[in-house]
Amino acid sequence: MTTVLVTGYEPFSTFDLNPSALVARALDGADVSGASVVGRVLPVDLAAMPGVLRDLLERHAPDLALGLGLAAGITSINVERVAVNLADLSRMPDNRGLAVADAPLAADGPDAFFATVPTRRIVERLQAEGIPAALSYSAGTHLCNAALYHLLCAAHDRTPAYRAGFLHLPLLPEMAAGQPAATPSMDFDMMRRAVQLAVEAAVEVAIGPALSING
Amino acid sequence: MTTVLVTGYEPFSTFDLNPSALVARALDGADVSGASVVGRVLPVDLAAMPGVLRDLLERHAPDLALGLGLAAGITSINVERVAVNLADLSRMPDNRGLAVADAPLAADGPDAFFATVPTRRIVERLQAEGIPAALSYSAGTHLCNAALYHLLCAAHDRTPAYRAGFLHLPLLPEMAAGQPAATPSMDFDMMRRAVQLAVEAAVEVAIGPALSING
Amino acid sequence: MTTVLVTGYEPFSTFDLNPSALVARALDGADVSGASVVGRVLPVDLAAMPGVLRDLLERHAPDLALGLGLAAGITSINVERVAVNLADLSRMPDNRGLAVADAPLAADGPDAFFATVPTRRIVERLQAEGIPAALSYSAGTHLCNAALYHLLCAAHDRTPAYRAGFLHLPLLPEMAAGQPAATPSMDFDMMRRAVQLAVEAAVEVAIGPALSING
Amino acid sequence: MTTVLVTGYEPFSTFDLNPSALVARALDGADVSGASVVGRVLPVDLAAMPGVLRDLLERHAPDLALGLGLAAGITSINVERVAVNLADLSRMPDNRGLAVADAPLAADGPDAFFATVPTRRIVERLQAEGIPAALSYSAGTHLCNAALYHLLCAAHDRTPAYRAGFLHLPLLPEMAAGQPAATPSMDFDMMRRAVQLAVEAAVEVAIGPALSING
Repeated sequence: MTTVLVTGYEPFSTFDLNPSALVARALDGADVSGASVVGRVLPVDLAAMPGVLRDLLERHAPDLALGLGLAAGITSINVERVAVNLADLSRMPDNRGLAVADAPLAADGPDAFFATVPTRRIVERLQAEGIPAALSYSAGTHLCNAALYHLLCAAHDRTPAYRAGFLHLPLLPEMAAGQPAATPSMDFDMMRRAVQLAVEAAVEVAIGPALSING
Repeated sequence: MTTVLVTGYEPFSTFDLNPSALVARALDGADVSGASVVGRVLPVDLAAMPGVLRDLLERHAPDLALGLGLAAGITSINVERVAVNLADLSRMPDNRGLAVADAPLAADGPDAFFATVPTRRIVERLQAEGIPAALSYSAGTHLCNAALYHLLCAAHDRTPAYRAGFLHLPLLPEMAAGQPAATPSMDFDMMRRAVQLAVEAAVEVAIGPALSING
Repeated sequence: MTTVLVTGYEPFSTFDLNPSALVARALDGADVSGASVVGRVLPVDLAAMPGVLRDLLERHAPDLALGLGLAAGITSINVERVAVNLADLSRMPDNRGLAVADAPLAADGPDAFFATVPTRRIVERLQAEGIPAALSYSAGTHLCNAALYHLLCAAHDRTPAYRAGFLHLPLLPEMAAGQPAATPSMDFDMMRRAVQLAVEAAVEVAIGPALSING
Repeated sequence: MTTVLVTGYEPFSTFDLNPSALVARALDGADVSGASVVGRVLPVDLAAMPGVLRDLLERHAPDLALGLGLAAGITSINVERVAVNLADLSRMPDNRGLAVADAPLAADGPDAFFATVPTRRIVERLQAEGIPAALSYSAGTHLCNAALYHLLCAAHDRTPAYRAGFLHLPLLPEMAAGQPAATPSMDFDMMRRAVQLAVEAAVEVAIGPALSING
């Protein structure tokens, strides 16, 4: 049976909600296109997160791993194409107060990995269903990029390799309603449906060698 | 019995939907806080619209008139505070092809009117319900501003005067999904709920002399 | 001889510079198209500013008054078309700490005035000289809108009436360089040249009855 | 003697100017911190550009190569940290009409390279001089990213390796003045000064093994 690991993040910074955690929990146990979803929430803790992720990968041995995270200010579901070997938390420390600047995520790791889920297909599938979606070429330098980098890095060491990707989600409307300046948001049901569609699109691609340019 | 006129606009420019028309139709016949809603759709036709509006005001003699319109690019329900005696369609002609530049809406009308619904109260009500909302000080120079100006102008000639206001709505998600660049949007159910809450907040204010600064 | 009053504002909020003050000072004493410029700096003090402005108008009896102010976040010289009878400093108090919300500027004043300088002509003149410029329909609810409202209000009581307008200026590059987020800016020399061109365009219009729609 | 290759791009899309070409030409032959600048303009031609670049690298054997390009819409000098092995011209073909989608730049190349100039130091140097500057983690998928990728790829094959980086420049004011919507811009002299400061900051770093995280 195909297993899909979907991870969200706990709230961070000034936010008391994180839609990525809510979606991961909402999809936990769901059956999507015949695949079984394991939804889990990661800590916003750069030092501890890789270990938590590694445990999840070992325990569930997923065929597909899809990370989710929050990006305040975006207007659409952003499908990330690239993860870089770099962490910079100097403008926004993690939940343990770590504020590392310009540090590598993996001492001997390559500079970057492309996501191995079919990113363009996911964007097109979402748009066809009326959901704003876009390709993104930077997942930032915080925990979200780190999750995608570690997922892709770990996949390279495993046989057979699982596919991995990451979606950035906008603020929920109730989070944007309290912001002083105009801030875009997206309805929770639409986010959940978007992630489900992304899983469907990724599962449809035969589980095999990773696409070179994640088309 | 209290009557509330809610107007939307038909689609215009490159859009084949207009959420303001959908919300006006969805609320037509509804009972909101004991008030009866008349929901109607106006033509995007600067020459004909004032006559259509006048007929609606005569036929339904509303106690409150709330115009709705679409503003691509906004992230929240924008509650308009000001209507100006100016039409400029030079960058976007109306549906009849009229592209007038810098023309007055009413030859001898005052330069502007403040909306007479409780604009700040509406914003606060929406935000309290988790709906992104903001005060706006320009309704533009197209049909939306014209509707608000004519509503306020006509109210000054009637005894007792009705209150009038205008809400700008964001794009629907399915409209934003087709745009080339990142564009904010809002779920339809949230828009409909927002307009209903705005009507409630406006109806609660005793029907009487207009507020000076629409607080 | 034609006299032009150009006012800027002192620094406010977290800014330690205000380009509008720098431009007003730089143009003080200049001869522009045969007109003599009086450049002065107004206090960011909603209670005191109208008196300072009134004194300047009495002392210099200008034929044209052009207010200048700073609007962080704009990308061009914004030529304001409308001033409203409303002050709202609730999000950003003035330099005396006044944080009034939704207060009228003039108890019995009209809701708004159109600027009486040729706003569109100014925009076109600036653009023709390669300077980003745009028409704006809201000067906000702070000191800038108040200066324009008071200038236009006072002009209506004087014979012959002078023309009045207002330009919002972007941040200077050195102000934007220190901001955490991406913020547009404009070179100081370009701002000074823009204001000079605006004065030229306004002076060329025969000093006479105000344009109805400030074309 | 230290040699610095600075490349700009010819105009593309609807633009009839490209500030990156103007700056490259303006700096050609200059002496910056004792280094000699060779300024050249590259064709916006994805197929031909790598050959042109290779010829320049062979002819001039630079110790430092700094690419420049235009990014309409940005507000600051953006110092790029990452180049990816991907070209997507599907939304904006190159000057030969090529509109390739999701193609690798180098068949067997790594997914990405970090820039090897001191990117953060460059940003801080520019900001200290009052020039808006920011780190950027995506150089896009057009010619600019391609130039940086090829520069970094070629540097890995050479001994000793030169350092390479890329700066994205905003529109010039005269380019923004003609745009329909509000668009940020930057003065030409400031751009030229920024590139000169970037070269200085890069030259100061000892010419040696590339920094791992381009700090």
